[in-house]
Amino acid sequence: MRISVLVAVLFLAITHVVAQEKLIGFTLRHASKQLELEKKFDSMVSAANQDTWMKFLTSRPHHVGSIQGKANAEYMANLFKQWGYETEIAMYYVLFPTPKSRLLELLGDAPYRAKLEETTVEGDRTSGQKSEQLPSYNAYSADGDVTAELVFVNRGIPADYEVLERMGIDVKGKIVIAKYGGSWRGIKPKVAAEHGAIGCIIYSDPKDDGYVQGDVYPKGPFRPQQGVQRGSVMDMPIYPGDPTTPGYGSTKEVKRLAREDVHTIMKIPVLPISYEDALPLLSSLTGEVVPDAWRGGLPITYHVGPSISKVRLALKFNWDIKPLYNVIAKMKGEAYPDEWVIRGNHHDGWVNGASDPISGMVAEMEEARIIGELSKKGFKPQRTLVFCAWDGEEPSLLGSTEWVEDHAVELKQKAVAYLNSDGNSRGYFGFGGSHALELFFNEVARDVKDPETGVSVGERRYAKMLVDADPSSLSKIIGQKNLTIEALGSGSDFSPFFQHLGIPSANIGYGGEGDGGEYHSIYDSYDHFIRFKDPGFQYGSALVKTAGRSMLRLANADVLPFEYTTLVNTISGYVTELKTSLDQMRVETTAENKLIKDGFFDLAKDPQHSLANPKIKEAVPYLDFSKLDNAMIQVEETSTQLSALLQESLSLNPIKVEVLNSVLFHAEQQLLDEKGLPRRPWYKHMIYAPGLYTGYGVKTIPGVREGIEQRNWKEAQEFIEVVAARVLNFNQALQKGVAAFK
Amino acid sequence: MRISVLVAVLFLAITHVVAQEKLIGFTLRHASKQLELEKKFDSMVSAANQDTWMKFLTSRPHHVGSIQGKANAEYMANLFKQWGYETEIAMYYVLFPTPKSRLLELLGDAPYRAKLEETTVEGDRTSGQKSEQLPSYNAYSADGDVTAELVFVNRGIPADYEVLERMGIDVKGKIVIAKYGGSWRGIKPKVAAEHGAIGCIIYSDPKDDGYVQGDVYPKGPFRPQQGVQRGSVMDMPIYPGDPTTPGYGSTKEVKRLAREDVHTIMKIPVLPISYEDALPLLSSLTGEVVPDAWRGGLPITYHVGPSISKVRLALKFNWDIKPLYNVIAKMKGEAYPDEWVIRGNHHDGWVNGASDPISGMVAEMEEARIIGELSKKGFKPQRTLVFCAWDGEEPSLLGSTEWVEDHAVELKQKAVAYLNSDGNSRGYFGFGGSHALELFFNEVARDVKDPETGVSVGERRYAKMLVDADPSSLSKIIGQKNLTIEALGSGSDFSPFFQHLGIPSANIGYGGEGDGGEYHSIYDSYDHFIRFKDPGFQYGSALVKTAGRSMLRLANADVLPFEYTTLVNTISGYVTELKTSLDQMRVETTAENKLIKDGFFDLAKDPQHSLANPKIKEAVPYLDFSKLDNAMIQVEETSTQLSALLQESLSLNPIKVEVLNSVLFHAEQQLLDEKGLPRRPWYKHMIYAPGLYTGYGVKTIPGVREGIEQRNWKEAQEFIEVVAARVLNFNQALQKGVAAFK
Repeated sequence: MRISVLVAVLFLAITHVVAQEKLIGFTLRHASKQLELEKKFDSMVSAANQDTWMKFLTSRPHHVGSIQGKANAEYMANLFKQWGYETEIAMYYVLFPTPKSRLLELLGDAPYRAKLEETTVEGDRTSGQKSEQLPSYNAYSADGDVTAELVFVNRGIPADYEVLERMGIDVKGKIVIAKYGGSWRGIKPKVAAEHGAIGCIIYSDPKDDGYVQGDVYPKGPFRPQQGVQRGSVMDMPIYPGDPTTPGYGSTKEVKRLAREDVHTIMKIPVLPISYEDALPLLSSLTGEVVPDAWRGGLPITYHVGPSISKVRLALKFNWDIKPLYNVIAKMKGEAYPDEWVIRGNHHDGWVNGASDPISGMVAEMEEARIIGELSKKGFKPQRTLVFCAWDGEEPSLLGSTEWVEDHAVELKQKAVAYLNSDGNSRGYFGFGGSHALELFFNEVARDVKDPETGVSVGERRYAKMLVDADPSSLSKIIGQKNLTIEALGSGSDFSPFFQHLGIPSANIGYGGEGDGGEYHSIYDSYDHFIRFKDPGFQYGSALVKTAGRSMLRLANADVLPFEYTTLVNTISGYVTELKTSLDQMRVETTAENKLIKDGFFDLAKDPQHSLANPKIKEAVPYLDFSKLDNAMIQVEETSTQLSALLQESLSLNPIKVEVLNSVLFHAEQQLLDEKGLPRRPWYKHMIYAPGLYTGYGVKTIPGVREGIEQRNWKEAQEFIEVVAARVLNFNQALQKGVAAFK
Repeated sequence: MRISVLVAVLFLAITHVVAQEKLIGFTLRHASKQLELEKKFDSMVSAANQDTWMKFLTSRPHHVGSIQGKANAEYMANLFKQWGYETEIAMYYVLFPTPKSRLLELLGDAPYRAKLEETTVEGDRTSGQKSEQLPSYNAYSADGDVTAELVFVNRGIPADYEVLERMGIDVKGKIVIAKYGGSWRGIKPKVAAEHGAIGCIIYSDPKDDGYVQGDVYPKGPFRPQQGVQRGSVMDMPIYPGDPTTPGYGSTKEVKRLAREDVHTIMKIPVLPISYEDALPLLSSLTGEVVPDAWRGGLPITYHVGPSISKVRLALKFNWDIKPLYNVIAKMKGEAYPDEWVIRGNHHDGWVNGASDPISGMVAEMEEARIIGELSKKGFKPQRTLVFCAWDGEEPSLLGSTEWVEDHAVELKQKAVAYLNSDGNSRGYFGFGGSHALELFFNEVARDVKDPETGVSVGERRYAKMLVDADPSSLSKIIGQKNLTIEALGSGSDFSPFFQHLGIPSANIGYGGEGDGGEYHSIYDSYDHFIRFKDPGFQYGSALVKTAGRSMLRLANADVLPFEYTTLVNTISGYVTELKTSLDQMRVETTAENKLIKDGFFDLAKDPQHSLANPKIKEAVPYLDFSKLDNAMIQVEETSTQLSALLQESLSLNPIKVEVLNSVLFHAEQQLLDEKGLPRRPWYKHMIYAPGLYTGYGVKTIPGVREGIEQRNWKEAQEFIEVVAARVLNFNQALQKGVAAFK
């Protein structure tokens, strides 16, 4: 059925019907039909399928370029085809380094050569597949053979180097050792290199990821002493994807940057190690005892260093171009074939990758299977559905980024929304993304049952939020209407869609109860998953229902279910945050500068553990927010107007749904700035980006926020104006929506 | 010189003189004379004396009843006599249990017998005095031989048992193991017994007290793996002193309670152990992983228990009556021989006790020596000086309490103030006590030079406070006029003077830079002290100057230097705190009860790690604070008036200094209530007491505060009125002071 003229458009229009019946973007009649469809969908969900597919997909290591990786893509492509999808394997060719040789040793009187080996574990059937496993390493580390004293740098983030400087420790010419955590791993070697370090070791401290958290594998789910977290250290906050093809697809014959011209590959050798291997290195450190917050869970006194004995770190990599196998499966929409609703999860793992990524991948497959079955029985989606299985996410969102860059023009035109997942486990519904989707996902969460409690997953998540809240703030949040959608930084395949192209995106999944320490190790296996992460795929099935109905609603909605007052209010909140943090920074800077100048730091210090004074900081100026404030006033008014019109639309004259849809369709793209963020033009969304010094962690209104945080006042001021211009642009788009009612 | 009529009384009267010249309680002329005297005093301070005396006093273990303990008392008494003091050794006879046998073992498949032995350490000359050392134990543990499963109870405070209950763990019939810290040690077995445990083990976790803090002895100052913290577990928050003679002196022939009738001796066997001995016990625990905040620094996963294998704890004690040797040395005051300014520090240690207590004791001795020398050259204090060296502080403030109880009537009449110290080390000036002394100690701190920086110890402490403050609150505290005197709980010999008799008291000392893990172990030795705690007795000498000039000022002041507006404002602050905490409790209770009733806890919980819901709590009523509020209004007015009169007194008619002194002298005693606190009548001060469930930690306005905390609303209401009555009583005393000006 093709709907060209729609009499009534409902957002939350009718107050006297049963709550269950309201669906954002649907007429009442279509909402009932949709809910019928979803009921059918739910009844078809199979845990056994997920189990079968996971067994196959995790049966051998399936990293980029592996035999199993290709086999997995073909296996999935075949299934998608069987289910009735137009399916292709979209291949790209990317720079993917793998280790040729790895050596880490402590020299001197008590020498130690790091084992760098995760051992086979009893009861884990795949942990012994030695010949196919990628050794533990950080992808896009530099080649190098360095020998130097060792310094402990805590998490290795900029704030840690401020402390080191006050302790009189310079890492220039040294090798640093940092704990995992506190930032995305790639930040650690980047900041180390910025401070002159010549090598970087990253280890999993048992306080964060090991026996302090709980019993270790195989007794319990946590990281055993020999477990290592692999992972990329490419400078993804600059741009993800193949580092040799920034901004365009890595097709077979494409022109590439020479490796020397790539700025996102780490400049120093970097190696991740286990806490067993870290112990002798950390024990060798002398110097001051580290600050309280830096201490880990190993049974030693943590010293900052340097070590008396030197450490040698020697790494060589194969810098090969490897093929990627993205599986792209389409089901054409009946009414709007050129409006694409896209779903993705990656399929490559660092080793066997059961939890990360296959648990999410098999849910997506089950969604596709059911929709395929339904379509064989006559169901037709109104919009086109696209199911993707990305390759090469682990090294640097390779598969998704190259595909998105390769199809950028088409996607900006056709992509309605992108829905990502990346693994799944027992627990609570989590969702992040564009705030235009907050209301939409609240409705989805209302309509999916939690397997453990039988209430909706929204209710359960709400209960968790209340129970975890500080009791003194409880009275404020009890009764809060909607669950808040989190802002997205990076760390998975939504980045190219969302932050590069401005396509409304979300990342969803369940978690919080399936704790473990298997992440990016050989222990992320089928055996580990079914014991600890999601026995019986109960939450896998919940994800199928959640993502499946999200896809169906996005595909079938009469009007696209984007709600812009929430987005606008959220942006307003960010603006207030920026002003508050600037004011607070000013107060603190003034006070701290006074303490330094008046000699209080000199008086307070212990002469036996002498800390240098902090440096006098430049005074924090007042910035001119007026342009942004004025733009916000306008867009607040317009979005409120638009919402009201949509809600009251029952009593209005018929409107053209196409006009409205076309406004909503591309509105979020108006928040992009083609020049992008400072020093990283690939990131074009002016509201959301991963932090330059946090990695996965989000920075909202990043141009301004990072300007302030880095005390680059000029840039912050400049970006206040850039953001204001984009907000006005966005406002104009919404005004077209308002006009559609006239 | 006897001053009977004083023309002018100055508090901070004259604004146009050099700041240095103002001294609370002194006329300007007397202030200069006093400052001259203090200059002389300072010039006579010898570090070498402190070193010599410490060497002798710590040469062998000197606990209650030891040969060295008696020898030390006689050594000090002889010196005091030589310095010109009327000196006596005041003996008491007290119940002091010592171990006869100690056994702790883990039974089962992997048995372990605890070593219970602190080993001799290289470079520490007294750690090998095995035959004289008191074995590691907790004094006033019950005798007992118990075998049961083991449960880990974190700190063993009431809040921990609420968590245990939610985890489904009952300690009834079990042996508990608790970490030191989070409360005074005696609270742990008391609360364990209240919950039905039959034995209690307390250990020093390396996270709090061991290698996590820094390098362990002898490499660094921190607690080595075999180190044990001895200490009393008598229920001192009920009453301190000999448990068989509550409220009266334990003289030789006095009638005593039978041991069975004593309620303050622990009801279950209790034993402190090292972290080396704790490791196999903790490793044997099964059950849930403990909450995050409970985790310690041992390289294991901490489980709550119970253990599969049982633990046996068998303890027998000699329940002997031992003699105590308090040294009391007096120098008669010229003008006011019946006004006593009292100084004390204890001399008994758990073993060699260099830091605790001898570092404070030798400072006191040096003060007494110099004043003795000065008096030989003609100096006469106006008031009587009393220097005390207490025995038996460690087991339960035995020496001070018995002496105070024995001389209660005389002390209430004659004691002007009591100044305590209890060990000393490098660092910052710390002072706690009656808020009537806040201004006094600010002046003292202004006039003593910090050895490390050359500024006053007040300035340094102020700098430390600013540098440690949260940067966002800095702007509020920069420029704060006075350092705040801390409220005193218990833990040293000021308790009987202050909380039993209402004598304005203070506890002072330096610390914060002389970190270590020697506390109550055989490693608290001369060798440890001079390496780590206060090399060269620099801060020992600072303490001599601080306490010495405090004694001289209290002795020579024209008018007693008590400033009551600060005390009254502080009490007002406490009243506001009580109201705020009651309101906050009400909001939180209402919100949490709602979460429980509405089923949010049920929904949020992880069924695989099931926590029971918290219990519904009784609603928090509104209490009637009006009587106390009205009393506060009156006393605020009177104290302000009195202060103003004292400050303007230069322009007033001459007043009788005796009248004024007599008002100030006993004013704080008016805050006592003879019936004392609920269920602990020995504690009579209505403003300050150690907490019933914190031990050393202070509870201000304890009758009301603990009533609220324990949700005993009736008692809280009752004590609002009791406190109001005492405040009115205090107000009447101050009104007499005001009247003296008329």
